[in-house]
Amino acid sequence: MKNRKYFCDVLIIGSGVTGFATAMYSARFNLKTIVVGDFDGGKITLTDEVSNYPGFKKLTGMELANKIKEHALDYDVSVVSARIKEIKKNKKGFVSKSEREVFESKTIIYATGTYNRELGLEREKELTGKGVHTCALCDGIFYKNKVVGVVGGSDSAGKEALLLAQNSKKVYIIYRGEKIRPEPINEERIKKNKKIEIINNINIISLNGEEKLSSVTFDKPYKGKKEFPLDAIFIEIGSIPNTDLVKNTGVMLNKKGEIKINRHAETNIPGFFAAGDCVDTEFKQAITGVAEGVTASYYAYQYIQNKK
Amino acid sequence: MKNRKYFCDVLIIGSGVTGFATAMYSARFNLKTIVVGDFDGGKITLTDEVSNYPGFKKLTGMELANKIKEHALDYDVSVVSARIKEIKKNKKGFVSKSEREVFESKTIIYATGTYNRELGLEREKELTGKGVHTCALCDGIFYKNKVVGVVGGSDSAGKEALLLAQNSKKVYIIYRGEKIRPEPINEERIKKNKKIEIINNINIISLNGEEKLSSVTFDKPYKGKKEFPLDAIFIEIGSIPNTDLVKNTGVMLNKKGEIKINRHAETNIPGFFAAGDCVDTEFKQAITGVAEGVTASYYAYQYIQNKK
Repeated sequence: MKNRKYFCDVLIIGSGVTGFATAMYSARFNLKTIVVGDFDGGKITLTDEVSNYPGFKKLTGMELANKIKEHALDYDVSVVSARIKEIKKNKKGFVSKSEREVFESKTIIYATGTYNRELGLEREKELTGKGVHTCALCDGIFYKNKVVGVVGGSDSAGKEALLLAQNSKKVYIIYRGEKIRPEPINEERIKKNKKIEIINNINIISLNGEEKLSSVTFDKPYKGKKEFPLDAIFIEIGSIPNTDLVKNTGVMLNKKGEIKINRHAETNIPGFFAAGDCVDTEFKQAITGVAEGVTASYYAYQYIQNKK
Repeated sequence: MKNRKYFCDVLIIGSGVTGFATAMYSARFNLKTIVVGDFDGGKITLTDEVSNYPGFKKLTGMELANKIKEHALDYDVSVVSARIKEIKKNKKGFVSKSEREVFESKTIIYATGTYNRELGLEREKELTGKGVHTCALCDGIFYKNKVVGVVGGSDSAGKEALLLAQNSKKVYIIYRGEKIRPEPINEERIKKNKKIEIINNINIISLNGEEKLSSVTFDKPYKGKKEFPLDAIFIEIGSIPNTDLVKNTGVMLNKKGEIKINRHAETNIPGFFAAGDCVDTEFKQAITGVAEGVTASYYAYQYIQNKK
């Protein structure tokens, strides 16, 4: 079978909220715009309740993703369901290939997000959003006066625990290693916080509960119990940017594998922009990713205008 | 009468969409948050239709402002209706004064927006949003195949005309001076664009129409006519950031009077953040201002945590 060929001004790689918001703006600039991705709506669709996208008090991640996608589809935007496997620069711009398609574009806006490191437990996917979470700021508010756990020993895990302790009744930091390693200032705060208790040298071996999480099972007893009741766990063992694809393009990454961008959402490669969870912005939220994508559209428009 | 005194972690100066989105996030960080402003909802409330805030296909500026305000008021946020007249730094943070109130805050997030330079014509305010506009990207789309004017001779005015020409039937650039002064590349494009016509050495002396703009009157005839039919005019004679207030605080401004910020929404003064239309971001949209405010909240939280 021959590959299907597409031509466009802006190829948006990634079909999450950032990708679709970016597409809406690109189309408003009258740029021929294609969104290509294999995970429609992106990672936010795994979040049960989103209450921090300004303008919507409360909706599911799926609802927010659908609203932004429908907004984009109000304009002249094409969506191709595929996974890009290769990106190359050529004289006119970029050539991106998936299994069956070839995309030639003047610019790329790369918005592929991240994937979470997982515990690798049997019921982990099924209970995601139902007591198994990955963002205290997003979902911690639903566990006011409840007993929760944070899995991980990094500074991020420590900060998640501190944030959760503001509303929850009790927060356990559950860590497989000898000793958690938060930054000194956070370590101090954790020590002082009576709501936080650290359980070192322990692993979770199963997640239990009917409709939602009610307990976890440890690999050895803690305070005499192997099955430990928890209303929620927040897994903070790291997330990995989906940036393998750009490693041959010369686009600069930081140590975490995130794409380096500036305030214009430009990378070091002219015409190659990036936005959302896969970039080196420290504080990553749906709203900040969306705004980066919108900014990328504007500078993609400028870039194309200046080449005319 | 004695002044009323307030204490808070974060004082948000400005009650537009940026201010309220910022407040929502600050409150989620459990920071004691006050919004102070004298223009509830801000400048976006003057926009008849907003179709570029990702997630809402179409709503009025007032509706968007109300949604974001109500979102903020779902949390523990105080709103004080007042105009700040003075900001001073002290050892603990900042002291801001209005006519009747004194606010002591650990941090400030400054989001006062801009005001547009106006033509100064009698019916200008009344027809704003009804054929009199200030943002081609926001409102140009409502004049597909219509005849519109851009008032101004700057590069911004030229770019607005080029953007409008993509959808409108005809675009007149109406300029009081000898010759418009866009950047060479835009000047070239304007010359080539058959839809755009420049009228130099002319002033608009009145805006006409019943419910909405239908024509303008020039101070001298153009092609034999003083009354000139237009479906809309886009006024691009500059906007002025509301930053007079910070001039004594040491906060750095650029040549346009905009507050210089970095990707953390930090100014040069620790604890003083800024976001939205009053900052030096080049591409200013509701969504980008909101995201800057959200980012400012996060770094205000970090700043306060680190001082503990």
